[in-house]
Amino acid sequence: MAACRITFLPFDKRVDVDAGVSLLEAADRAGIVINSICGGDGICGRCKMIVRKGTVRSEPTPLLTREEIRAGVVLACLSTVQTDLEVEIPEETLAAEKVEVDEEAQRFRAIRPGITHRQFSKTPLVSKLSLELDPPTLDNNLADFQRVQRAVETGMGIASTQMGLKVLRQLPLVLRRRDFAVTALVGRRKEIAEIMDVEPGDTADANYTAVVDVGTSTLVCHLVDTGRFSTVDAQACFNSQAVHGREVTARIIAAEKKGIGPLQNVLVADINNLISTLAVRNNVALKNITAVVCAGNTAMMHFLLGLPPDNIRRAPYVAVNVEPSPFRAAEVGIKINPRGLLYSVPGISGWVGGDLTAGILATGLWEREETALLIDVGTNGEIILGNKDWLLACSASTGPALEGASVACGMMAEKGAIEKVYVEDDEIRYKVIGNAAPRGLCGSGIIDLIAVLLDKGLIDRAGKFVPDSDPAVTFDGDAGRFVLVRGGRKDPGTGVFLTQDDIDNVITAKAAVFAAAKIMLDRLNLTFEDVSKVFLAGGFGNFIDRRNAVRIGLLPDMPIASIQYVGNTSIWGAKLAAFSHEAYDALREIRRRTTYYDLMGSPDYVEQFKQAMFLPHTNIELFPSVGRPKTVLA
Amino acid sequence: MAACRITFLPFDKRVDVDAGVSLLEAADRAGIVINSICGGDGICGRCKMIVRKGTVRSEPTPLLTREEIRAGVVLACLSTVQTDLEVEIPEETLAAEKVEVDEEAQRFRAIRPGITHRQFSKTPLVSKLSLELDPPTLDNNLADFQRVQRAVETGMGIASTQMGLKVLRQLPLVLRRRDFAVTALVGRRKEIAEIMDVEPGDTADANYTAVVDVGTSTLVCHLVDTGRFSTVDAQACFNSQAVHGREVTARIIAAEKKGIGPLQNVLVADINNLISTLAVRNNVALKNITAVVCAGNTAMMHFLLGLPPDNIRRAPYVAVNVEPSPFRAAEVGIKINPRGLLYSVPGISGWVGGDLTAGILATGLWEREETALLIDVGTNGEIILGNKDWLLACSASTGPALEGASVACGMMAEKGAIEKVYVEDDEIRYKVIGNAAPRGLCGSGIIDLIAVLLDKGLIDRAGKFVPDSDPAVTFDGDAGRFVLVRGGRKDPGTGVFLTQDDIDNVITAKAAVFAAAKIMLDRLNLTFEDVSKVFLAGGFGNFIDRRNAVRIGLLPDMPIASIQYVGNTSIWGAKLAAFSHEAYDALREIRRRTTYYDLMGSPDYVEQFKQAMFLPHTNIELFPSVGRPKTVLA
Repeated sequence: MAACRITFLPFDKRVDVDAGVSLLEAADRAGIVINSICGGDGICGRCKMIVRKGTVRSEPTPLLTREEIRAGVVLACLSTVQTDLEVEIPEETLAAEKVEVDEEAQRFRAIRPGITHRQFSKTPLVSKLSLELDPPTLDNNLADFQRVQRAVETGMGIASTQMGLKVLRQLPLVLRRRDFAVTALVGRRKEIAEIMDVEPGDTADANYTAVVDVGTSTLVCHLVDTGRFSTVDAQACFNSQAVHGREVTARIIAAEKKGIGPLQNVLVADINNLISTLAVRNNVALKNITAVVCAGNTAMMHFLLGLPPDNIRRAPYVAVNVEPSPFRAAEVGIKINPRGLLYSVPGISGWVGGDLTAGILATGLWEREETALLIDVGTNGEIILGNKDWLLACSASTGPALEGASVACGMMAEKGAIEKVYVEDDEIRYKVIGNAAPRGLCGSGIIDLIAVLLDKGLIDRAGKFVPDSDPAVTFDGDAGRFVLVRGGRKDPGTGVFLTQDDIDNVITAKAAVFAAAKIMLDRLNLTFEDVSKVFLAGGFGNFIDRRNAVRIGLLPDMPIASIQYVGNTSIWGAKLAAFSHEAYDALREIRRRTTYYDLMGSPDYVEQFKQAMFLPHTNIELFPSVGRPKTVLA
Repeated sequence: MAACRITFLPFDKRVDVDAGVSLLEAADRAGIVINSICGGDGICGRCKMIVRKGTVRSEPTPLLTREEIRAGVVLACLSTVQTDLEVEIPEETLAAEKVEVDEEAQRFRAIRPGITHRQFSKTPLVSKLSLELDPPTLDNNLADFQRVQRAVETGMGIASTQMGLKVLRQLPLVLRRRDFAVTALVGRRKEIAEIMDVEPGDTADANYTAVVDVGTSTLVCHLVDTGRFSTVDAQACFNSQAVHGREVTARIIAAEKKGIGPLQNVLVADINNLISTLAVRNNVALKNITAVVCAGNTAMMHFLLGLPPDNIRRAPYVAVNVEPSPFRAAEVGIKINPRGLLYSVPGISGWVGGDLTAGILATGLWEREETALLIDVGTNGEIILGNKDWLLACSASTGPALEGASVACGMMAEKGAIEKVYVEDDEIRYKVIGNAAPRGLCGSGIIDLIAVLLDKGLIDRAGKFVPDSDPAVTFDGDAGRFVLVRGGRKDPGTGVFLTQDDIDNVITAKAAVFAAAKIMLDRLNLTFEDVSKVFLAGGFGNFIDRRNAVRIGLLPDMPIASIQYVGNTSIWGAKLAAFSHEAYDALREIRRRTTYYDLMGSPDYVEQFKQAMFLPHTNIELFPSVGRPKTVLA
């Protein structure tokens, strides 16, 4: 196929793609994040672009007005490239009111070309099956349950089904209410399926799953339409467990003192809030949310299920269960359909949880011929190294700085967050999510700002503020700070700034990640040159400046093209499972195939960590592309 | 092998067997019922016999004293025939204090030679597995559940296990109480197994199952030692639901009026009473009873599980569920181990229940080359016709007369019941269970008595008392009665007698059974000559006089050798399942393979029923061996 050059305005980004590729994918390959909710299914109408030069072939859509069509507006997901193009991307197509959805949809598309694994079947963990059964006669007097069972087993290709007593007791009435037209709610539980409920009439249209990334600092919930395999909406919040401690270990200690109840309760309340917010906003009845799929670190999953996490924090760091069976969601207090199921994404060990298993699935790491790295930075940093033949996992204690927590002006990647900091005309400039007034810095902004401060010589390679380097750098005793946005006159504390503590926290975090990756490679006698691809996952924001991530030494100095920011792979992997029990089975296989490597067992770790406490690293030869920073060494 | 002739004293019964056959089996083939509890495992020591002439080879046993051995006493189950023998059977070896156990153990042995099916593996539905796990280390830091799971899956060859949240929450503590020595309680649930509980230390020795035959009139419970594959004890009681109606239909109507609650409650209370009686008597803690396996007619199983039985009584007679999954026993209020499971033996239709599926399994009907009949007479009569290729089932409404209920002096086959009536020296004599004072008649006694009355001309072929035929026959108006045992002078009502109503009830019952069997054969263009074997099941007593059963027309006129009384096959089939999940799977297969035939759909049934309302039948040519009875026709 002919290669076409696409130029995206206003930023003048160029990318070469084959004819026939969708505009959405082209933008994606150009590294542009598009405000698509539906993930490219032509439903949400958010990926509008204006074709200025050249020809696209567009499928018809009711989501565009005549005026828009006349003005050259197309939906990027429904339009394929035919020639060289010049395409303008309107501000609102980039804007991100609902950050997480956009991010996820984007990542979904962004990763798809890069992964090798098969498409999974469309076989949700909990599905609804509309049945028009033959009413019984003397010649066909199968019992009620067996009648439903046979239809479900035939309809879904499932070998064996069962039904709880409560549902069974209602079954005769329910079957006869609409003359044996019913909808069966079928949940998969390992090798068998449970007919969780039977409703009169055809209700198969209304079937939703809440997919939750249970993070230490942040909870993210996506409401997905299970029958249509699409994302409806998303919502995020901070984990209210923070009152019991910022980090996992502190919370485990709190649970040992106070009992697990208080920690479980706030977590369940947070999840219920997220779900009910999404349900109300999208006019979805809770009873039609029939499943919750949760991926989280192992301790969080213990808190959620009420399992004692004590042994996770002490050598040999043993979890109670890294692959819990599905339970009734009501059993832990999650308010969805009373018969709804709670699926846990299986984790790997006490310190590498289901969020990483999900990431391995989502990135296809487990099916790649070539060795790749997955670096997931949350409140802890987990690093997976491997390919289709082997997978090695470790966990490094980073603290939540790179998520925007434990940073004075840090915040989630939501409206008002500075997500990008850059130098233009020698001035430090920034970009705010939602074009709002700046309220703080999200992860990507923090990384950018530190890189910029380093480049401009405002901090040294140890990350320390350089006195008198800039009027925006001020000192209170030894504690420097850089003011990026001035506060109001009356309330100067409302500005956006970065403190020495913030920088120290970020350096500690990035050093832990880098040292962990280095140790894993060393253990296998590999170098970064043996790594074909680095997937960076985490809640940094909509995108991350990969050069700056290398610049500060969070990522190894590899060709930028081989680094891919994949966002929240925890929720994406969990969503794949919600949509396909094959994907869920794959998660179980990944769990079994992944070996946990305990960093504390490595004699080199402390030394490697210390060496990584510089920007980008003590050993600058590891970062040839970065060169010597333009800093003024004292 | 050489044939040896065994003569059993005192009754001078003879049987020819090959050398090497056990004495117990020889007695069995001679039709002698032995008081063995263990079923021939050499444990209970109840099958003592005295070898008067000839040689047996006996295994050593601590259950015999030196004096006994010197006197020629052997345990029949441990002794094999070597020569012709003369063997005396002491009274206590025949006596039956615990009727049900004896009966069951006996039937187990009695049927074994007659059946063709494979031995089932010793794989109980709920088993205990003692595990000595390796405590976790840094090199082996499998999560707690996965550690147990792996050991269970390896130890039991099960592919997939799961564990409930409550057990999971206790798991870390339980594992660490005895340094990772635990006992797992594992219940099979279709294709997967549930680790129902985990106990510290080795408790595998204490694992019991309550096997219950849930009859309309009578409940029978056997306590079995699941680990040793033996029966510990048994207990029976009448079904207290009788206050809501004698027969199934009346109880279903009662449930429609009062709700199912009252009927479920009394049934569960009865079962709990039986279980606790057995537990106390045998010093077994309820928590060590880990499973209940129930076989019963479909309506009874509905009452037990709280499923609305309404549709069973109306065409097309549809059950809610004929093959319920295992549930937590506590969910229906059965008091055993709180995590214990309730298994239902799958039934065939609304009117042919799991008691019959169990009977088909126990008699091996489903694996026989030649066609056989299974006639199970309880409160209803169910008839199964078939072989390894096909199975046809029907149900006939008999009433409970043949169980000893709805008969004035009827009683269960327990101590004090007249179980045998015969003529000696022209006198009517009887035999009482347990050599006690006679209190009433059990089923076998009733059949005998009617046959004797017919033979002696005290009743006519219509079953009506003949006036002035005997001083023991008295009339109150038209209502005759025969007094078998006179009551005390002060209380003549305490005697044992048979009324005209009793006889009418029995004739109705036997006519329903015979007509049903005839109709099924007719439908397939078969005759009784095509039937190689008739298994007669039911709660008649320890044994039944087969000639008398033919004499009154309950059974067809076949060679006596081809008729086998098999007692309570419901409990025996259920017990096979308790001991082997392969047997449970076989029950499920039998359920699927058996076709229900609705008698009411047959235009001939009423006519056939009317013809069978004579003793033995209107068409005496069907009973050539019986000949014309010596009755005085009016």
